[in-house]
Amino acid sequence: MIDMMPSEIDEMLNEARIGRLCMAAPDGRPYVLPLPFCWYDGTLYLRLPLSGRKGMILVHNDRVCFEVDSFSEMMDQYASVLIEGRLAEVTDLRERRQVKALNEEKYLRLRNGYRPGHGRVTSIEDLPMRKIIVENVSGRMKEREQAVVLDYTI
Amino acid sequence: MIDMMPSEIDEMLNEARIGRLCMAAPDGRPYVLPLPFCWYDGTLYLRLPLSGRKGMILVHNDRVCFEVDSFSEMMDQYASVLIEGRLAEVTDLRERRQVKALNEEKYLRLRNGYRPGHGRVTSIEDLPMRKIIVENVSGRMKEREQAVVLDYTI
Repeated sequence: MIDMMPSEIDEMLNEARIGRLCMAAPDGRPYVLPLPFCWYDGTLYLRLPLSGRKGMILVHNDRVCFEVDSFSEMMDQYASVLIEGRLAEVTDLRERRQVKALNEEKYLRLRNGYRPGHGRVTSIEDLPMRKIIVENVSGRMKEREQAVVLDYTI
Repeated sequence: MIDMMPSEIDEMLNEARIGRLCMAAPDGRPYVLPLPFCWYDGTLYLRLPLSGRKGMILVHNDRVCFEVDSFSEMMDQYASVLIEGRLAEVTDLRERRQVKALNEEKYLRLRNGYRPGHGRVTSIEDLPMRKIIVENVSGRMKEREQAVVLDYTI
């Protein structure tokens, strides 16, 4: 395993559909859930209402980490990225609008233009948009040479 | 979203190559890493030496959760399973042998018979085999009807 370069980490985060938000309850129980996300300008954005179990944890402890991984069917190639920091609400309306547009662009691209039907449209003010204020980013992958070979064979 | 049936959870765990082990450090920082695993008889088995950062956390707090998810390219279908419990070493040699064989069988099947070369073979006594003594299993998925349709279209 080797460390990934920042450009490799950015690329992986831009191409990944789902990551896992990991949190720690005050009683020491970890909790995790898979979520779509938007990586922009060194910040990780999520649509995350503070409801249910995650809400009960995050109200007490805003420390989170977010994991994204990628592995080949044969598992001979793999990489994973970890984003660590604190979760905060996105209060600035301009930031909200910008991230909403970027997020739509990301998932439209990843879904080849397919746009799933929405039950309802949430106004920009009511969108439960949160971000990880990043304290640490790390990425580990199998050797780079093999990754390049794989790019041509799959 | 609906709850998954135990048989659906078992199937998902048997078919998944990778899951994510989530833990909580005493200072409230969550940590997570992707790992292969073996699900057998209601117990989740891992090859996990207590080295590095994970070791420093798990020595203090054996509460863990393990997440497995599955989603379609278009993200119109998704499911995730969460296994929660406490991590313990597998001390019984018979249990170690049985799980090692089942694990090899699982990954040979998932890799269509491809067996990656090993640098060295670890003896059964030295294998850092651990298990999650399960306290809770839950699974959530999108509506079942759509999942059945997808089984035929992908």
